[in-house]
Amino acid sequence: MIQTPYLLFLGDAPDQLAAKVAQGIKDWRPENAVGQFRMPACGTTVGLQDMTLEEGLAAGAKTLVIGVANRGGYISAEWKEILVSALNMGYDIASGLHNLLRDENELMAAARVNGRTLFDVRIPSVAYPIANGKNRTGKRCLAIGTDCSVGKMYTGLAMDTEMHARGMNSTFRPTGQTGILITGGGVPLDAVIADFMAGAVEYLTPDNDADHWDHIEGQGSLFHVSYSGVTMALIHGGQPDALILCHEPTRTHMRGLPEYDLPSLEALRDMALPIARVANPACKVVGISVNTQHLADDKFEAYLAEVEARMGLPAVDPFRQGAARLVDALADI
Amino acid sequence: MIQTPYLLFLGDAPDQLAAKVAQGIKDWRPENAVGQFRMPACGTTVGLQDMTLEEGLAAGAKTLVIGVANRGGYISAEWKEILVSALNMGYDIASGLHNLLRDENELMAAARVNGRTLFDVRIPSVAYPIANGKNRTGKRCLAIGTDCSVGKMYTGLAMDTEMHARGMNSTFRPTGQTGILITGGGVPLDAVIADFMAGAVEYLTPDNDADHWDHIEGQGSLFHVSYSGVTMALIHGGQPDALILCHEPTRTHMRGLPEYDLPSLEALRDMALPIARVANPACKVVGISVNTQHLADDKFEAYLAEVEARMGLPAVDPFRQGAARLVDALADI
Repeated sequence: MIQTPYLLFLGDAPDQLAAKVAQGIKDWRPENAVGQFRMPACGTTVGLQDMTLEEGLAAGAKTLVIGVANRGGYISAEWKEILVSALNMGYDIASGLHNLLRDENELMAAARVNGRTLFDVRIPSVAYPIANGKNRTGKRCLAIGTDCSVGKMYTGLAMDTEMHARGMNSTFRPTGQTGILITGGGVPLDAVIADFMAGAVEYLTPDNDADHWDHIEGQGSLFHVSYSGVTMALIHGGQPDALILCHEPTRTHMRGLPEYDLPSLEALRDMALPIARVANPACKVVGISVNTQHLADDKFEAYLAEVEARMGLPAVDPFRQGAARLVDALADI
Repeated sequence: MIQTPYLLFLGDAPDQLAAKVAQGIKDWRPENAVGQFRMPACGTTVGLQDMTLEEGLAAGAKTLVIGVANRGGYISAEWKEILVSALNMGYDIASGLHNLLRDENELMAAARVNGRTLFDVRIPSVAYPIANGKNRTGKRCLAIGTDCSVGKMYTGLAMDTEMHARGMNSTFRPTGQTGILITGGGVPLDAVIADFMAGAVEYLTPDNDADHWDHIEGQGSLFHVSYSGVTMALIHGGQPDALILCHEPTRTHMRGLPEYDLPSLEALRDMALPIARVANPACKVVGISVNTQHLADDKFEAYLAEVEARMGLPAVDPFRQGAARLVDALADI
């Protein structure tokens, strides 16, 4: 586990999109961040208090989290100077960048000298077991999508947050680097060796209290030919009791696959349920989460109502409307 | 690619089961092996001519292939002495053992000094791409199973062999270490990083002549929760035109999963076809391959006849009956 709280490194992020990871931490685990660190060239903010490295330490920060994508795909000399200073001052560093911290000699040397840890969360740090498929105690909910990047992580975080607000017993279980940095732990499933994918998901979602819900972060899509194997392993390793179908209605083709149309929500339901029931015969599809950000304010409610009537399931945009009705839908499980 | 022909190292294999890889090479690619090398303690044979390392070289062997499982899960001092001699004499060495050749200092040193190559076929040697899902020319056939280890590799090899005997244009495409050693190349799919599984299968089965068939070696099962993600990537990466359903009728539960029953052939067909049609809308289930080794000589034909009538598809045991009717079933595709 990455030690919290964090100081969020925004570096020289030109805009909000580049600071997506920091924004996710600010939105979902504000208690995990004491402030933000910006370089002079930074063109955005996540709205936290600006701090120097020294001020972050004084506020209790244990880890400097790279909350930003790196320009050009390499770790610049300017970044490195700051990161080495942080290690010298006693910070751990955590990163989801493709370029690994551990591949930078200066950072490795400074971490060793100071006894600090570099967390490259894209790389598994655990030798996961082969899945054994044994039935586990507690409840699990998995968001699956008609496509990649349709709001599965957001849906899981929103349902977990709603449950906590109600005093219910739940945990968000990250399976990608953004989710791992937001919560401090999880499994970078897309980087796991094929034979151990389902076992990694079992490891992530162990036996739990009978009233406890895991909200497992979804990945890929059963209909996305590049990543469907990862989705399959999530369904069979997670043995979910409940599935939430996620959709983005304005997309014209599968992400990165211009020749592939999106499936209907019906097609997703009909493919996913028999698959899920291999591992958990009681699994049900309980609700629909729609990312309506590209639908106008006067259009999205009509769309959701149409989906809800057609599918016979609650259909909500958790960003616009909250996840209350999705959590309500778990009550019967 | 591993250089052929091989000398097959049987080492101190106690019995035929331990020499499974060597037997596979002898059965399916006899032209790839000049002979077998046995240590004094060896308790089995694959029926090839016994040769010393020198005799193997004289017969043209380029690579010493470890055709046997290692006792105790480590590479013994006795083995190492022989393997180092082979490297010194000019052999490459290829192995599918869990213990990697490259992790043995003596072998690495001898390979370096002599400019030879150590092939650990369990480990990918290529940086596979992310799958792009683009439609490819040529035809592809994939064997999928109700369970693991029900004869998928055997089915693909038998169909490929039958096609060659008929003068047809086909290639067996291995996805596991035994198949890779048999043919000299392939993708060790269970060791590929999750994000690249489907891309590895695309890489393995590229554009080809319109009349060419790839017989893709299947892995796992859509119903085997430990490995179903690998199977999924095979189906979406392979974009098969034809599926063969494989089954072993006497198995009482899924391999390694005592709590899981085997699915029916109907359930396998009904789950697999919609999945396969995501990548190839024209995909059909064309035949059934049954491993009847545990059915008596007076029972297996009645069983196959019953399956054939029930499923409306040719049902054969390619080991007992040959793969001719499965190849015939591809004619309509």
